[in-house]
Amino acid sequence: MVAPIQRVAIVGGTHGGELTGVFLARKFQQFPLQIQRNNVETITLLANKKAVTMGMRYIDTDLNRAFNPQDLANSQLMNYEQSIAKIIAQRIQQEKIDLIIDLHSTTANMGLTIILCSSHPFLLRLAAYLTGINPQVKVLQYPHNHHKSCLRNLVELGLTIEVGAVANGLLDAQLFKETEDLIHSILDYIEADRQGTPSVAPANLTFYRILEKVDYPRNKHGEIQAMIHPQLQFKDYKPLHPGNPMFITFDGKDIFYEGDSTTYPVFINEVAYYEKGIAMYLTRKEKYCCEVQENKPKKT
Amino acid sequence: MVAPIQRVAIVGGTHGGELTGVFLARKFQQFPLQIQRNNVETITLLANKKAVTMGMRYIDTDLNRAFNPQDLANSQLMNYEQSIAKIIAQRIQQEKIDLIIDLHSTTANMGLTIILCSSHPFLLRLAAYLTGINPQVKVLQYPHNHHKSCLRNLVELGLTIEVGAVANGLLDAQLFKETEDLIHSILDYIEADRQGTPSVAPANLTFYRILEKVDYPRNKHGEIQAMIHPQLQFKDYKPLHPGNPMFITFDGKDIFYEGDSTTYPVFINEVAYYEKGIAMYLTRKEKYCCEVQENKPKKT
Repeated sequence: MVAPIQRVAIVGGTHGGELTGVFLARKFQQFPLQIQRNNVETITLLANKKAVTMGMRYIDTDLNRAFNPQDLANSQLMNYEQSIAKIIAQRIQQEKIDLIIDLHSTTANMGLTIILCSSHPFLLRLAAYLTGINPQVKVLQYPHNHHKSCLRNLVELGLTIEVGAVANGLLDAQLFKETEDLIHSILDYIEADRQGTPSVAPANLTFYRILEKVDYPRNKHGEIQAMIHPQLQFKDYKPLHPGNPMFITFDGKDIFYEGDSTTYPVFINEVAYYEKGIAMYLTRKEKYCCEVQENKPKKT
Repeated sequence: MVAPIQRVAIVGGTHGGELTGVFLARKFQQFPLQIQRNNVETITLLANKKAVTMGMRYIDTDLNRAFNPQDLANSQLMNYEQSIAKIIAQRIQQEKIDLIIDLHSTTANMGLTIILCSSHPFLLRLAAYLTGINPQVKVLQYPHNHHKSCLRNLVELGLTIEVGAVANGLLDAQLFKETEDLIHSILDYIEADRQGTPSVAPANLTFYRILEKVDYPRNKHGEIQAMIHPQLQFKDYKPLHPGNPMFITFDGKDIFYEGDSTTYPVFINEVAYYEKGIAMYLTRKEKYCCEVQENKPKKT
C-alpha cells in the first residue's frame, strides 16, 4: 500500500506555449477551493512564467529536462530554466508534495494521455480508474529511467496529463474542459482512497510502452528530408504495420515502416521534438492486471 | 486587360514558424526549373531567414506589417524586420516582379484560402479559376486599404495562399502538397494567358468579404476571459447565425453572437492574432460575376 496522499501539486506552464495548463493553473490559483478535498490539499504552480509571457516553450533550455538530481545540485547550472528548476524542486519539497500532476499539450493527436514514468501500483490503479470512467483516456508508459530530468519525477508519484492535438499558443475550450475533468477525477480518486472507500477501477489496464524513438530522415547536414506521411499524421495510438507508409519526401516518394511487428506510434509530428530528433515514439500495447485487493468496491 | 505577367515571386517564411511556405521555398530554390514556364519566370524568396532559424513568427516586429510605403522610406525604422522589409521591397522592384504569391499558414481551419487585397479583375478571374479546378479553395477579400503594410501589396497583383489548420513549426505533408499544387495551377494559368489561350474559369466567383474583427472577451487588464466556443472552433467559413454560441468562459458560460445577420467567421483562434486583439474576422459571402470576355474558352 502507498502512504496516504495528503498533498498534491498541479503544475501548468512547464512549457510556456502550452496554454491549456497555463490557463487551468491560473483558474485554480483564482479559485483554489475547486481543487481542495476534505483530506487532500492541492497547490498550483505556474512553472515557467517568463516563457508563458513570451509565448515560448522555454527561454534558455527545456525546463522539463532540468530536474535531474545532479543538475539540481549543481550550482554552476544557472541559466533561466536551470534556476527556476531549483526553486520549483525546493518548493515541492517544502510543501511536502506527495503527487504531482504536470499539465502539458502537444501538436500530436494524443487525445487525453496520462504519462507515467514508473510502474507504481498506485499510479497504475489510478490510470486504470481514469480509463474506466473515460475510455478516451490513453496511458503511456515511459521507461523507468527515462527522463529523470522531468518535473513529474520530483516525487515518486508523478504523472503528466498530455492533451492534443493543439497548436502551441492556442486555447482549445474542449481540451481545457476535458483536462479539468481529468484533474477532478484524480483528486476525487485520491480523496476516496483517503476515506478508505477506494473507487472501483477496471481489473485490467491497457497501456502503451515506449520502445524507441524514430527521427525524420535527414541529410548529412541534419536537414529534414521527408515529412510524416499523410496516412500517419494524427494517427497516434493507431496500429502501424510493417510496410505501412511512415514518411513522404518533398518529391512525393513514400518511405515505409520496416519494423518486424505492428507498433503504435505516439507523439507523431510533435513540433517541439524536431530539435530533439524525434519524429515519433514507437510503442507496444500491453495489459496490466491490477491487484484484486487494490480494487475493493467503493462503499456506499 | 492587365499588362502581361512576365515575372512572379514566390515568398516563403514571411513568418518564421509557418513551415509549409518555408519548405516549399527551399524546394523551389533547389529545383528552380519546377516553377519556370515558357513565358513566365519565377523567383523564390525566403523572407525572414532569422525567424525561420529561430522557429519564431518574427524577431522584433511582424514582417508582414512592415511594408507600408512610408515605413519603407523611413530610414529611422531599422529593427530586424524593418531592415529586411526594405531589402525585400528593393529586390521585388529590381526583379521587376509583376505578381507575388506569399505563402502562409494558420492555426485556424482556413483550408486552402486565397487572400486578395484588391478587386483587380485579373486576380478575381484567377481566383475563380482556382475555385473551379479545386472546389475546396476559398477566396477571402480584405478591404482594399487594409494591411497596406503586407508583403503581397508590394505589387498590384499580390496574393497570399493561407493554409490550415496547422500548428506553427509543424510540417503537414498534405497541406504542403496542396499548396504546391495551387502554386503550379497559378503559374499554369498565367502561362496560358501569356500564350493567348486563357484557361476557362467559372462565370461566378464566390468569395468572403471581411467586415470586422472580433476580439476575445477581456478584463480591464487585457486578460482573456473566454475561449472560442467548441461549437465554433475549426468552423471557419461556416455560417454563424445570431444567437449561436461564440465564446465560452473558463467557468463554462456560453457567450453568444449578437449580430443581426448570419456571418461567416474566418481566422477563428489564430494563435498569432491573440496579441493583435483578434479572435476572428466576420465576413459576408458575396458573388462576383467574371466578365465574359475574360473567360474565353482555352483553345486546344
